[in-house]
Amino acid sequence: MEEKQKTTIVLFSGDYDKAMAAYIIANGAAAYDHEVTIFHTFWGLNALRKDEPIKVQKNFMEKLFGWMMPRGADRMGLSRMNFGGLGTKMIKEIIKKHNAMPLPALIDLAKEQDIKLVACQMTVDLLGLKEEEIMEGVEFAGVAAYLGDAAEGRVNLFI
Amino acid sequence: MEEKQKTTIVLFSGDYDKAMAAYIIANGAAAYDHEVTIFHTFWGLNALRKDEPIKVQKNFMEKLFGWMMPRGADRMGLSRMNFGGLGTKMIKEIIKKHNAMPLPALIDLAKEQDIKLVACQMTVDLLGLKEEEIMEGVEFAGVAAYLGDAAEGRVNLFI
Amino acid sequence: MEEKQKTTIVLFSGDYDKAMAAYIIANGAAAYDHEVTIFHTFWGLNALRKDEPIKVQKNFMEKLFGWMMPRGADRMGLSRMNFGGLGTKMIKEIIKKHNAMPLPALIDLAKEQDIKLVACQMTVDLLGLKEEEIMEGVEFAGVAAYLGDAAEGRVNLFI
Repeated sequence: MEEKQKTTIVLFSGDYDKAMAAYIIANGAAAYDHEVTIFHTFWGLNALRKDEPIKVQKNFMEKLFGWMMPRGADRMGLSRMNFGGLGTKMIKEIIKKHNAMPLPALIDLAKEQDIKLVACQMTVDLLGLKEEEIMEGVEFAGVAAYLGDAAEGRVNLFI
Repeated sequence: MEEKQKTTIVLFSGDYDKAMAAYIIANGAAAYDHEVTIFHTFWGLNALRKDEPIKVQKNFMEKLFGWMMPRGADRMGLSRMNFGGLGTKMIKEIIKKHNAMPLPALIDLAKEQDIKLVACQMTVDLLGLKEEEIMEGVEFAGVAAYLGDAAEGRVNLFI
Repeated sequence: MEEKQKTTIVLFSGDYDKAMAAYIIANGAAAYDHEVTIFHTFWGLNALRKDEPIKVQKNFMEKLFGWMMPRGADRMGLSRMNFGGLGTKMIKEIIKKHNAMPLPALIDLAKEQDIKLVACQMTVDLLGLKEEEIMEGVEFAGVAAYLGDAAEGRVNLFI
């Protein structure tokens, strides 16, 4: 039996369009039977946040960061032409018209395809996020786990 | 006969400097006899736009996006220190003084070196670009074609 | 004897958080005995600048760029939520509280682990930086040297 090809993506960006690109490539690779990991770090973690407010104990700085960062994929903005959210709204409208998949649907598809969604433990801590705020089915791991996967892959992207 | 090494770059960015980096790496790889593909998606598509206005049928949103996005590589701006275009102008001046290649020349060189320039069909549609607006010699393809190339490559970058 | 796995990172970004991600991955890979190269180009070169002002002969444009770009890793800002430096200050505070490593310490660790730090000669020239302004132990090389390393690696990232 041939071993599965491994594909990894570090999702650093908190931009809607960049996260879309990451999840489209990841879902494509999974459809081609690659074993895919998306390692979410820094602002990319926001894509994994639950969209409802979660009651957790936080210090002042953690509260501040939690409040300023978007709560979930649907609240993220474009990397350019965002215009205070208007551009993002327009892109979502266009995605709908083209029967393409918006980001939250792409994330759901990734889960269905058993793409491994990982939250970088170190940056979860730095940004003051709590496990309860992260959606179900996400693993918490560090750079060592990422490198273990990436060292066996060929398509390893940083987005 | 040894097979050629494959190198792929996803050019997502619409920034002049990032596109320069992408094309410098691509041209370098082609000079070392790699088989190189640049897959242009989202704002990276602007590097492939013809610089003259093209008469095409567009709806309101497509017109708006087409009007707001730079028409061709030479109109793109720096990712930082752009200062409303002044920084980009300065960098172009410096590039000239150093006899380095500006972005449009790097794209021409890529074509001469048979680098495969691909426009992501899905994002061409989302951003409302029409085939007539894209320069000659560009292929239109999807994430599957990209993954086919990348899965056989070692240097696979997302820029 | 098995050959060492090669890992390369192109550090294009001049953002504190992106450079942190680059150096954390690089240091992790070195700890797993990979042979690691970080190729600094464009704004990523700022991470290699000495933090004290260096007396060098520069023309007007070189002075201007030199003056506008951050002098060393500690002066770089976040890619988002920078708020004129306040966000960066907060993150540094949090890093300290969590006993995590700030960027300058990550760079020192990289040197201790024999990670090859390279400054892209072409962009050093374009941005008007002088060799005397770059920290000790950094090599100057071009895209050919980068590709030589990357072509033998599997984890090749552009950050």
